[in-house]
Amino acid sequence: MKVGIVGATGYTGVQLVQILSRHENAEISFVTSQSYAGRQLAEVYPHLAGLDLVLTEYSPALLQRCDCLFIALPHGLSGPVVADAREQGVKVIDLGADFRLDDAGTYQQWYGSEHSHPQWLRQGVYGLPEINRAKIGNAQLVANPGCYPTTVLLALAPLADKGLVNPGSIIIDAKSGVSGAGRKVSLTTHYSEVNDSITAYGVASHRHTPEIEQELGKFFNAEVKVSFTPHLVPMTRGMLSTIYASLSKTVNEDELRAIYQDYYQGEPFVQLLSPGQWPKTKYCYGSNRCFLNLTVDQRTGRLILVSCIDNLVKGASGQAVQNFNILAGLPEDTGLAGMGMMP
Amino acid sequence: MKVGIVGATGYTGVQLVQILSRHENAEISFVTSQSYAGRQLAEVYPHLAGLDLVLTEYSPALLQRCDCLFIALPHGLSGPVVADAREQGVKVIDLGADFRLDDAGTYQQWYGSEHSHPQWLRQGVYGLPEINRAKIGNAQLVANPGCYPTTVLLALAPLADKGLVNPGSIIIDAKSGVSGAGRKVSLTTHYSEVNDSITAYGVASHRHTPEIEQELGKFFNAEVKVSFTPHLVPMTRGMLSTIYASLSKTVNEDELRAIYQDYYQGEPFVQLLSPGQWPKTKYCYGSNRCFLNLTVDQRTGRLILVSCIDNLVKGASGQAVQNFNILAGLPEDTGLAGMGMMP
Amino acid sequence: MKVGIVGATGYTGVQLVQILSRHENAEISFVTSQSYAGRQLAEVYPHLAGLDLVLTEYSPALLQRCDCLFIALPHGLSGPVVADAREQGVKVIDLGADFRLDDAGTYQQWYGSEHSHPQWLRQGVYGLPEINRAKIGNAQLVANPGCYPTTVLLALAPLADKGLVNPGSIIIDAKSGVSGAGRKVSLTTHYSEVNDSITAYGVASHRHTPEIEQELGKFFNAEVKVSFTPHLVPMTRGMLSTIYASLSKTVNEDELRAIYQDYYQGEPFVQLLSPGQWPKTKYCYGSNRCFLNLTVDQRTGRLILVSCIDNLVKGASGQAVQNFNILAGLPEDTGLAGMGMMP
Amino acid sequence: MKVGIVGATGYTGVQLVQILSRHENAEISFVTSQSYAGRQLAEVYPHLAGLDLVLTEYSPALLQRCDCLFIALPHGLSGPVVADAREQGVKVIDLGADFRLDDAGTYQQWYGSEHSHPQWLRQGVYGLPEINRAKIGNAQLVANPGCYPTTVLLALAPLADKGLVNPGSIIIDAKSGVSGAGRKVSLTTHYSEVNDSITAYGVASHRHTPEIEQELGKFFNAEVKVSFTPHLVPMTRGMLSTIYASLSKTVNEDELRAIYQDYYQGEPFVQLLSPGQWPKTKYCYGSNRCFLNLTVDQRTGRLILVSCIDNLVKGASGQAVQNFNILAGLPEDTGLAGMGMMP
Repeated sequence: MKVGIVGATGYTGVQLVQILSRHENAEISFVTSQSYAGRQLAEVYPHLAGLDLVLTEYSPALLQRCDCLFIALPHGLSGPVVADAREQGVKVIDLGADFRLDDAGTYQQWYGSEHSHPQWLRQGVYGLPEINRAKIGNAQLVANPGCYPTTVLLALAPLADKGLVNPGSIIIDAKSGVSGAGRKVSLTTHYSEVNDSITAYGVASHRHTPEIEQELGKFFNAEVKVSFTPHLVPMTRGMLSTIYASLSKTVNEDELRAIYQDYYQGEPFVQLLSPGQWPKTKYCYGSNRCFLNLTVDQRTGRLILVSCIDNLVKGASGQAVQNFNILAGLPEDTGLAGMGMMP
Repeated sequence: MKVGIVGATGYTGVQLVQILSRHENAEISFVTSQSYAGRQLAEVYPHLAGLDLVLTEYSPALLQRCDCLFIALPHGLSGPVVADAREQGVKVIDLGADFRLDDAGTYQQWYGSEHSHPQWLRQGVYGLPEINRAKIGNAQLVANPGCYPTTVLLALAPLADKGLVNPGSIIIDAKSGVSGAGRKVSLTTHYSEVNDSITAYGVASHRHTPEIEQELGKFFNAEVKVSFTPHLVPMTRGMLSTIYASLSKTVNEDELRAIYQDYYQGEPFVQLLSPGQWPKTKYCYGSNRCFLNLTVDQRTGRLILVSCIDNLVKGASGQAVQNFNILAGLPEDTGLAGMGMMP
Repeated sequence: MKVGIVGATGYTGVQLVQILSRHENAEISFVTSQSYAGRQLAEVYPHLAGLDLVLTEYSPALLQRCDCLFIALPHGLSGPVVADAREQGVKVIDLGADFRLDDAGTYQQWYGSEHSHPQWLRQGVYGLPEINRAKIGNAQLVANPGCYPTTVLLALAPLADKGLVNPGSIIIDAKSGVSGAGRKVSLTTHYSEVNDSITAYGVASHRHTPEIEQELGKFFNAEVKVSFTPHLVPMTRGMLSTIYASLSKTVNEDELRAIYQDYYQGEPFVQLLSPGQWPKTKYCYGSNRCFLNLTVDQRTGRLILVSCIDNLVKGASGQAVQNFNILAGLPEDTGLAGMGMMP
Repeated sequence: MKVGIVGATGYTGVQLVQILSRHENAEISFVTSQSYAGRQLAEVYPHLAGLDLVLTEYSPALLQRCDCLFIALPHGLSGPVVADAREQGVKVIDLGADFRLDDAGTYQQWYGSEHSHPQWLRQGVYGLPEINRAKIGNAQLVANPGCYPTTVLLALAPLADKGLVNPGSIIIDAKSGVSGAGRKVSLTTHYSEVNDSITAYGVASHRHTPEIEQELGKFFNAEVKVSFTPHLVPMTRGMLSTIYASLSKTVNEDELRAIYQDYYQGEPFVQLLSPGQWPKTKYCYGSNRCFLNLTVDQRTGRLILVSCIDNLVKGASGQAVQNFNILAGLPEDTGLAGMGMMP
């Protein structure tokens, strides 16, 4: 399959290149960049020295050269590209936020501007394969999930319809590496401001909140409101969410563990760790895997879940390739079999 | 005042030396160490080159040379030293955990061994000056608070007796730098295992839990059970707690902010930041200050608080010196006036 | 080909597993460990969850189960294992230092103990493929180079026999990530002692010095003495050497650049960057590539070279697999085609 | 004494504020900023909460409010401010590079633009107190040294006029933390590009080279050309130089050590460590001290020196305050007595 990447010089873009350039069933036809058009990608990223890919400016005509298009643009910019692709019948995997929410009003409320193409909002399939595998296979437009929602939804999916937790009690305390903020320079990501320090940000106002709530709402068949607090951690990659929920039934850890094992049986990318072995983001470094663990705090009647991913892989480009594999009818782990790198 | 430090080569010990060696009203009479007895402290810590302090083995006779004793030993070891000091009428500030809990049973339950001197448990004054200032002034034995409890208690103290939050709903998600684990080598603190990675640990089982609950219980005049999850962050110093509590009354952020400003009016070491300015551990780097902020998440009816400290200063040795200043009738910020270092 | 790994739980050992478990022509028959025998490797390294490899204690009988043996032990321990393997006709790639030096006296002088098997010292082929490819193909025992020597030798090899630099003037200032010190805990690698700090160590006394000198001696056909200063850098992986040499002839940068391009033409793992583009260790992260650049400082008449590698890959386990590929008659980049990961 | 700070929101500016706000003989009269004029400094740097300093735009009229002016501007911008100050008879300590070089031609060659006030070049006293103490005391304009030159000159000063080393052989391999690049955002200092990686930069072309050569020329009474290679290290503060020089006489380490001890006898800020104890930048963290050590590599006939400082303190603002103390006739360590912070 021929693929194109719009926005190849951002961190999710180059991560796509890193994965797809070694994917046995994908051929990268073009890579676009506004700022670096005309230059070799390997000039921008010297670690790719030897890879012959010239950056080009985006134009709709490019789409004829690919069967599937990956869009790795900041939110608000995907609309017109999706329009072009839909017109030409090219399947799209959008790594941005524009087609994740079902509701244009919710989009406007959290993103602060009107949605450019509300008519397609409900056509975008939410691309979390472990939950939506079947729908993704037939999709024309896959809305690749946000990184934070991926950690949360994989952690809570096995509880859907089980009636075990009170959905109104869910609190998500999340921690992200700095690469999640992208390659655009800012004081927030300036080395000397970030190093050796941790901070909370977007408290009670982060844009991934409605995305999490929308999908949890489907799990629990109810309107769900969560508290979601992201933090910026002095590390490049990695994202870890600690999730608290009140149990609404008496259940012990072993029973819960069995539910999770059952739910993720055979899944190549979700791994429940042994009791007491808490996920460490380094376990996922460079891999498409999500590590999970849980405990029941009997003293407080709460379930505590910890999940982690590499925000650029399972949280973005790896998951996008996983979706591509589904679209293309390939084994889901094609090009994604790596296990993470330690140390 | 002459002071002695038992356990001067651990990280809290050397931090005590760093502060006390420049304290205008303290003179360090002796510093002890089991492993390095007979050597200059500056051999163990070359950054102290020029400071003439020879490490000595602890013996009760040393106590005659000091008016106040700081104990910076791992938990379980303070008992006999406290006994010696009490006998000789030397005031003690214990940075360890042994005299923080009021109840010997609780100690045994969480620390896994019987308490060596249960008779003194209730004589130890819990040394959080912002709350217990008066009692500390008359204490013979000050139990210096744990680092995590300090972040939590300073964040919640202004709410005591206000009836604004439901004490049973409190969830604390805390993040610590690695120096909190001390200088003892282990795989947990091995650079290549920690760097560029975050993990949770001690989930629902950390020993600071009963300490937090005991003091919150006094605030709220009720038995309080909290969920407390610490995380290990790739940074040397710094500790940040994100605290969630359900509001039991309708209250807006401005009203809460006023309560906090009022409560901490005139406090030299607690700083409420402006709305939207979230604490960053680097703000406290090397200083005895605690930075706080809060927001009300109206969507979920929860109060979210973030507080941070330098775990070795306000979380340990700085607070110990603050307690010493109170004991000695000195201005509380003597030797502690530094503002943190950025970048 | 069936392979065995002796010492699989150290950092070079687990890196071998990471590479070989995805190598299409290698099957890992056994992995040994003294400390963890009997346990799953994935218990020790949870990021390998799903990989079914049980650690076993080393015994000579294991060797019947492999065609090629990788030894990843601390120096001084390889001798007996090599003896066993030689007896059973199993090819060996030793990642340790024991068979790199040609001379037992030099070994004793720098390593401080007598060599256990001096008779084999000259049978070990120094496994730097870019220089010794032909010999490696026929070797029974490959001595995998040290990480520092790899950076130095790849940087200087193209100058061998050219008479362009004065070999007596060579100064190597090298910088290493902390994983080079292995997984054994120590104060030197304790997070809080290493983070946010750099130091020199082993100044004028590091054990890689004679290895560098021995191989440079072959390049320049003369006894060579170098100044070599390693530094410990707060990063997990990566090694960078800055090399200074006085030019003995007038030569400009373009001419030198042409020599390097010519020398490394077609080499899959050595990459000369464009003028002004200085190597960054992150470029090699997780890959088997070495990045090089050079400039001529006309003001001082010196050539300055910078080279970098991932110390655990091209500096250890990746290079070992490259040697394995040569031994096995496979394309040299089998299992090693990755390009490094950014960011 | 009343002092003013021009450029108070850069990293050297805020470091000045951090030191001077606690200096018993200095009162900060004004702090200027172009970007943040009108705001509290504590809004820009929340860790200064409680310090009441309003940023103002620079104007010559401000100068009437101070006895001594600190300029912490990017190079090329100090000229007009110095002109204003000279006119009003206000002493100036310029932390920028504009008045460090004696020769306008050299300035133009390395900084790429004509010097705005060449007539004052020779009036600026090079502010390295350990060498120029007497001249500084009478200066109207002190040119505060660059950070790299400080590490190099303190390491080599004791050898001036001793005829022990060959000045033409000096090679300086230097490593700096990221704060040296200032607070201006750029891809070079973007967290995800810097973290967990090291790189060389400005190889054979860094602007501190002529400054080093000029001052070494005075030491050795000869024109000196050095090779100087800076590197960017993933740490916030700290700078370490490793210096190589060929010995021109037979001398052993003890003799050299005696020369250094003698030279730095009584100096509060330069510390020669014990044999084998190599400087670590963390030793200087937040302090005005320089740590040194040396060895003689008898095999190669070279002297190897390692020196380190905190680039923002002894490498910039601490040294500026040291110069201020000299100008003001105060003990040189006033406000600078701190010893560095470990861990």
